[in-house]
Amino acid sequence: MSHDLLLRNVRPLGGAATDLLVRRGRIVALEGSEPAPELAVEDGAGALVIPGLVEAHTHLDKSLWGMGWRRHQAGPRLIDKIETERRLKKEWDIDPARQSARQAVQSLRMGTTHIRSHVDVDDAVGLAGMEGVLATREAYAEVMDIETVAFPQSGVMVRPGVAALMEQAMRMGADVVGGLDPCAIDRDPKGHLDLVFGLAERFGKPVDIHLHEPGQLGCFSLELIIERTRALGMKGQVTVSHAFCLGDPDAGLVNPLLEQIAALDIAIATTAPASRPVPAAATLRRMGIRLCAGSDGIRDTWGPYGNADMLERAMLLGLRNNFRRDEEVELALDICTTGGAAVMGLRDYGLAPGCQADFVLVEAESLAEAVAARPPRKLVVKRGRVVARDGVALVEAP
Amino acid sequence: MSHDLLLRNVRPLGGAATDLLVRRGRIVALEGSEPAPELAVEDGAGALVIPGLVEAHTHLDKSLWGMGWRRHQAGPRLIDKIETERRLKKEWDIDPARQSARQAVQSLRMGTTHIRSHVDVDDAVGLAGMEGVLATREAYAEVMDIETVAFPQSGVMVRPGVAALMEQAMRMGADVVGGLDPCAIDRDPKGHLDLVFGLAERFGKPVDIHLHEPGQLGCFSLELIIERTRALGMKGQVTVSHAFCLGDPDAGLVNPLLEQIAALDIAIATTAPASRPVPAAATLRRMGIRLCAGSDGIRDTWGPYGNADMLERAMLLGLRNNFRRDEEVELALDICTTGGAAVMGLRDYGLAPGCQADFVLVEAESLAEAVAARPPRKLVVKRGRVVARDGVALVEAP
Ligand SMILES: [Zn+2]
Ligand SMILES: [Zn+2]
Repeated sequence: MSHDLLLRNVRPLGGAATDLLVRRGRIVALEGSEPAPELAVEDGAGALVIPGLVEAHTHLDKSLWGMGWRRHQAGPRLIDKIETERRLKKEWDIDPARQSARQAVQSLRMGTTHIRSHVDVDDAVGLAGMEGVLATREAYAEVMDIETVAFPQSGVMVRPGVAALMEQAMRMGADVVGGLDPCAIDRDPKGHLDLVFGLAERFGKPVDIHLHEPGQLGCFSLELIIERTRALGMKGQVTVSHAFCLGDPDAGLVNPLLEQIAALDIAIATTAPASRPVPAAATLRRMGIRLCAGSDGIRDTWGPYGNADMLERAMLLGLRNNFRRDEEVELALDICTTGGAAVMGLRDYGLAPGCQADFVLVEAESLAEAVAARPPRKLVVKRGRVVARDGVALVEAP
Repeated sequence: MSHDLLLRNVRPLGGAATDLLVRRGRIVALEGSEPAPELAVEDGAGALVIPGLVEAHTHLDKSLWGMGWRRHQAGPRLIDKIETERRLKKEWDIDPARQSARQAVQSLRMGTTHIRSHVDVDDAVGLAGMEGVLATREAYAEVMDIETVAFPQSGVMVRPGVAALMEQAMRMGADVVGGLDPCAIDRDPKGHLDLVFGLAERFGKPVDIHLHEPGQLGCFSLELIIERTRALGMKGQVTVSHAFCLGDPDAGLVNPLLEQIAALDIAIATTAPASRPVPAAATLRRMGIRLCAGSDGIRDTWGPYGNADMLERAMLLGLRNNFRRDEEVELALDICTTGGAAVMGLRDYGLAPGCQADFVLVEAESLAEAVAARPPRKLVVKRGRVVARDGVALVEAP
């Protein structure tokens, strides 16, 4: 595989048509150049090219993708979904290696080139999730970059043995320390966060905490996260996922937190759910707060939705934030590309010379049209290699 | 065209596989039968069959579909969008006949068989919108049922001459009298509603009023609508579109209104927007209130979104209402099928023997999967005639 490529007649970010030359997996020029004889050439036919989409919050280890339809039956509370999932993982044989590979290939054919995946670490599955996702990361390393977050989905303070499992997960190579609802699920916010930040300090890794807690409760947990970020000098190393509490209409509650979040460069990950309050994307962007987006669970025991299409996620972000003007829709897409890259700390991301050649072609006149219409991906390129064409992945899923 | 059809091996609403026989445009049996020699036969290959999707709230006259991408530039307020649209209709030549035909064909290929379209009646375009949509209704009568609502988008009390135009629209054949934000736009709720209900009484037609007004203001307007519905004996003849005020969290404000709405059989139309409060679908259903759904504007000057896919609308309804269990997702789909039929007063709608043979085939294991995955429509049948196949319409759009 040469990983050299000459892409003719594409429009970077919807701009003027140009050629794009890739050498050894990197973009070397945006100008036209005559193809060397050995160079693979693709005709973009005027398609729009955008940097690879970034799936910055998902759960590769437990999707039901490709397992046939399963009726969804979990009860309404978070804890119902956690308990149902623990049971069904065994009953339905939701194999983390197989399922993460299936979802990764689905992501790839939708134009995603980077994934941050939370991976369950608990006393029911132990480290099987980590093992499975790490196996997929290895097997698909050529075509997809996968980052793992050791995620105590069932709680850690309330589950004896999970603290030790979390530590083992970090030793196995988890890239990020995860956490979850320090009050609502773990019933011990100080204990939970000291443990999470303790692991981060010990292993020198960043943190990404699921925070579903709404209103005052969520803001309290967020204060504790902010305190630890500041005390440990972890500026720029912490992500809070969901952060529904930041969507609370009480500006007197939310604004002081946003200011500290900006000052400590804490990132926010959102799925832009329609049924929950959410942090206001335009406000966060205006304050310079890094914001990324993800699908969260894709067709899992929690719910039936999701197709790993980050252009669709950009649309949902736009709908949730009432973005209608083209520049607003472009912001939604930016959150699903450069926003994710900034949260994952990707170097050399983008379409500039020197960047890793990860990008996707779509037939659309403009970025906003790409989001509104979500056409099949004409071409997906990973490190200069064509990995999907016309919506079809060129690698096999199990 | 015989309008006879034998459809082999389909699963009505995801149930057991059966055959479906159509004679003279009507379903005559769900049991297998030997094809007569002259009978067209289609192999459903086990696909799921659902009744034709119902687009119960849209604006056929002003979509930009097929006009190339236009940057969206309208300001944030409702009145900004109204003013921008009035200007751009002329500048961009948004021809109502052409555009309504394009959107209708797009709807058709997505499996929609019935459309209720609001049509602008105002002092800028006069009756050109009505003329255009009525022309499309006529031209596509064989393949799509279109109902028109005379809609005073720019207001009627604040716009001299519009009252007379509304009356002319009814004489031209509008099926429903429309209205819009009696306080916020027309600044005269009594005047506006007396005019709307007066036309309804005079022409013996139902009413469908856009009500964006939130909270207390919207509830006040809704009270006035309820009073007139009761006073004029128009039980079952009134629809309120959007009704964001019914999404207000103040149950003391909302619940008494819901009870009266149920008692007077007032219907609610929703688009399930992610960025606004909405009436709770499950609550309305539980109270026996008719609820239908629609795309509202599809890629128009108001915003870039929309593709006329009512399966996607069902998904958005599901996401907005946090529907996760299969039976909840089925409810979302039901709102986009039988819910719309109930609001439009369709006779003979459904898959039972005797019903008009309007249905759509999708490759999915279950109704919930059809909503979550939104596959291309395998076959769309209107009065027994195949009008779209594998996502491609078999009729031409201009
Ligand atoms: Zn998650
Ligand atoms: Zn409307």
